[in-house]
Amino acid sequence: MSVAPDPAASIVPDWLSEPGDLNALCTKLWPANARRNSGGEIELGGLWASELASQFGTPLMVIDEDDARSRMRSTLEAFTAAFAEAGTSASIYYAGKAFLTGAVVQWVREEGLNLDVASLGELTLALRAGFPAERIGFHGNNKSVAELSCAIREGVGSIVLDSWYELERLTTLAREMGARPRVRIRVNSGVHASTHSYLATAHEDQKFGVTIADAERMAVQVAEENVLELLGFHSHIGSQIFETSGFLAAADRLLDLHDRTSKAIGRGLPELNLGGGFGIAYLEHETPLAPAHMATELARELAAQAAERGIPLPHVAFEPGRSLIGPAGVTFYEVGTIKAVHVGEGDAVRHYVSVDGGMSDNARPALYDADYTVRLASRASTADAMLVRVAGKHCESGDIVVHDDYLPSDLALGDLVAVPATGAYCHSLSSNYNYLTRPAIVAVRHGAAELMVRRETIEDLLMRDMTFSAAPTPHEQEPTA
Amino acid sequence: MSVAPDPAASIVPDWLSEPGDLNALCTKLWPANARRNSGGEIELGGLWASELASQFGTPLMVIDEDDARSRMRSTLEAFTAAFAEAGTSASIYYAGKAFLTGAVVQWVREEGLNLDVASLGELTLALRAGFPAERIGFHGNNKSVAELSCAIREGVGSIVLDSWYELERLTTLAREMGARPRVRIRVNSGVHASTHSYLATAHEDQKFGVTIADAERMAVQVAEENVLELLGFHSHIGSQIFETSGFLAAADRLLDLHDRTSKAIGRGLPELNLGGGFGIAYLEHETPLAPAHMATELARELAAQAAERGIPLPHVAFEPGRSLIGPAGVTFYEVGTIKAVHVGEGDAVRHYVSVDGGMSDNARPALYDADYTVRLASRASTADAMLVRVAGKHCESGDIVVHDDYLPSDLALGDLVAVPATGAYCHSLSSNYNYLTRPAIVAVRHGAAELMVRRETIEDLLMRDMTFSAAPTPHEQEPTA
Ligand SMILES: Cc1ncc(COP(=O)(O)O)c(C=O)c1O
Ligand SMILES: Cc1ncc(COP(=O)(O)O)c(C=O)c1O
Repeated sequence: MSVAPDPAASIVPDWLSEPGDLNALCTKLWPANARRNSGGEIELGGLWASELASQFGTPLMVIDEDDARSRMRSTLEAFTAAFAEAGTSASIYYAGKAFLTGAVVQWVREEGLNLDVASLGELTLALRAGFPAERIGFHGNNKSVAELSCAIREGVGSIVLDSWYELERLTTLAREMGARPRVRIRVNSGVHASTHSYLATAHEDQKFGVTIADAERMAVQVAEENVLELLGFHSHIGSQIFETSGFLAAADRLLDLHDRTSKAIGRGLPELNLGGGFGIAYLEHETPLAPAHMATELARELAAQAAERGIPLPHVAFEPGRSLIGPAGVTFYEVGTIKAVHVGEGDAVRHYVSVDGGMSDNARPALYDADYTVRLASRASTADAMLVRVAGKHCESGDIVVHDDYLPSDLALGDLVAVPATGAYCHSLSSNYNYLTRPAIVAVRHGAAELMVRRETIEDLLMRDMTFSAAPTPHEQEPTA
Repeated sequence: MSVAPDPAASIVPDWLSEPGDLNALCTKLWPANARRNSGGEIELGGLWASELASQFGTPLMVIDEDDARSRMRSTLEAFTAAFAEAGTSASIYYAGKAFLTGAVVQWVREEGLNLDVASLGELTLALRAGFPAERIGFHGNNKSVAELSCAIREGVGSIVLDSWYELERLTTLAREMGARPRVRIRVNSGVHASTHSYLATAHEDQKFGVTIADAERMAVQVAEENVLELLGFHSHIGSQIFETSGFLAAADRLLDLHDRTSKAIGRGLPELNLGGGFGIAYLEHETPLAPAHMATELARELAAQAAERGIPLPHVAFEPGRSLIGPAGVTFYEVGTIKAVHVGEGDAVRHYVSVDGGMSDNARPALYDADYTVRLASRASTADAMLVRVAGKHCESGDIVVHDDYLPSDLALGDLVAVPATGAYCHSLSSNYNYLTRPAIVAVRHGAAELMVRRETIEDLLMRDMTFSAAPTPHEQEPTA
């Protein structure tokens, strides 16, 4: 007699196995101050899931402020220490695109990091929240004249030149405004990191930057024109990177460029920026490098690369976003329906758990086929595990929050569930699909909750609709700087 | 001697060929009132691209109101006529999820269609814009108590029951409120339309509806309890459908269910709703069926299916969204940079044209790998064709608006380009990624432009951020009905 195959096996992904304890919170997926308290509830920064939900409603995004700050601090410290050891200095730009609010800007400032922005909106927010302009780097493949002139006027620390057109545009503006903006040149280095591996080609089939050959010519032109101040080169090789090899491959190309250019213009360029993309764990089996490990390895290898070329290692900058904020965020949802769906022709059952948010507050599963995990938040349970798919409430079948995980089989309507690692690229990419209002965002710390972003209302959504509002003057239609 | 292979061939998709005339506007992709005028510009509803851009700014979404209204009207007329011929009546619900604003609600009302909504937000918008509640159908896999009670209170025409939990929730509410809401039951029919083909299984691995067996049991229970009024069954088989076969396969299953259930409860159910999903052309080679063709074929075949069963064909409803509004919309962008990227190791060149919008105003290329076309809008050109990829201005390499098309090689900064067929699921899915503000939306008709939705401002984006605003009272945080 053979053992009957598990009917569910065919629909369970390789990487997923039934957890021994459905109440456990895997440390690497949850913020530092998350735990299951004596009442069985998930607690974040000293606040119970049910308290947070009743005070702020659901869906709710909660950020563990201490966790976020300590990621920022420890990353900056690790890189500063490692590169000091290697004989140079380092800086960390927080990539605002990952998650930006007034409060986050203040944390970044207080923790001593720089800030990377990519639009007039991000720049305006940062300046209004009191971030020092000289610690801001401004990115983007198509910065408008309004964006560039705002950056010059406000004295932004560096502008990343992305094309020959932009060089012309910025040079003209700088002359007109009598300013000397500092620039880096974005290089399409041809190195592209996919998770756990990297590809290297002559250059990539994408919109950012200029080729290595063009970057050298551009640098020489900038030096000759002497209108802009050239800081160095910049590359960004991708996201969710778990190894240093891609950064080292890019650095290898950029250091050659750096060296040739420094010689061509007769002075050593002061810095090199290797971009962001440090990976985080969304699933238990994923193993990102600790910042200290990453920093030590990168500093040692970059020092060796510079030594090989007989040149000093310039100041090195990185601009991670996800790794600084992603794991600090947890989204809480309320369960609205549970549906057992027999899958395929066999006996496998997938339980569709529908919650009160969805692709409007977390587009990553729909956009990148991204995976997340889920835990019952409002109580502990000793029930058996059931295979679930957490779906949102949008009128679209691709509206999935968690493709595959287990929840206790006594899950009931009104239970709160929590999805960890939603700090990065969830709020940023959020929409109002189906006129759903976007969640409140709350920072928790030492038992206190502070509202960072209030919940959107239906009134907010109708505000721009001229059927319900008075006509704006043409001036009001313009974006404001 | 062999002919040298075209180096670009390897990067050009199969379906794309260099257009004979780069200025031509393919009728099936553009709104009825789009043309290139004597000045060489694209004109929409009698207004020049350059006029629209200077009055309203870019990116700008423009809707050809007459085109949208005539799609609504002709679809309703075609279905009404064809089903009258088949001995019954038909109705068309406009699927609000595709594109909903106050003005659109009024067009839908005036053209005599019903309206399908999927959230409290969509319902609130529709009611405020004066849409009669009894012509509204309310969908959703996880409707909240707030949504269901609002629907009951306002007298919504039908609520689509999606689960056993919802049946319980609605029955309780109806009893409490002393109302008798009308319901349809959403069936997971197992028929799924992919473009040009369909799959049929016992049921689908997705969150919507109940199985055919459950639908029958649920209908009997509804009839016995006699609290809700049962109208019939509902299915939705997918989107971008180019043939009638999928609808007929679903109808075949639903008519059996309808027949069995009618017998079991001792009265003929009055209607059958077969959902939306009528396809449109995004590319020149795509050939959606004309509404009249679709209606005639569906009415004839459904009548035959009913006749086979010896039952009368009930009232039949459909709920298309995309086909009614998609082709009426055009998005105008201004060109900001142009970059020639040599692709692969060969000589193929792709020109990255960066515009002032992107995945925030059109997420479909990133979300569904959707293809669009693009034309130079602010002037005609006799220059040669160049292969382009239109990219947005977001800090993300997946930020593509048009993957592959040709534009004239004399394309210059400041030129306006236009992307047609953006009426559906672009505004709906729009985000504020990178703190980009969402475009204004304008209706054009007979040489006049009317602002439907004003451009978003950076002030709007900072409004919910508590660093910049006063604290809301807890009450203000609640969604309003
Ligand atoms: C230029 C640049 N820098 C930094 C980042 C941040 O990446 P991550 O959040 O993965 O660290 C990105 C992300 O797209 C980027 O494009
Ligand atoms: C139930 C239902 N009806 C109608 C529609 C409208 O589809 P389309 O815009 O493709 O016609 C959808 C789309 O998702 C839907 O889910």
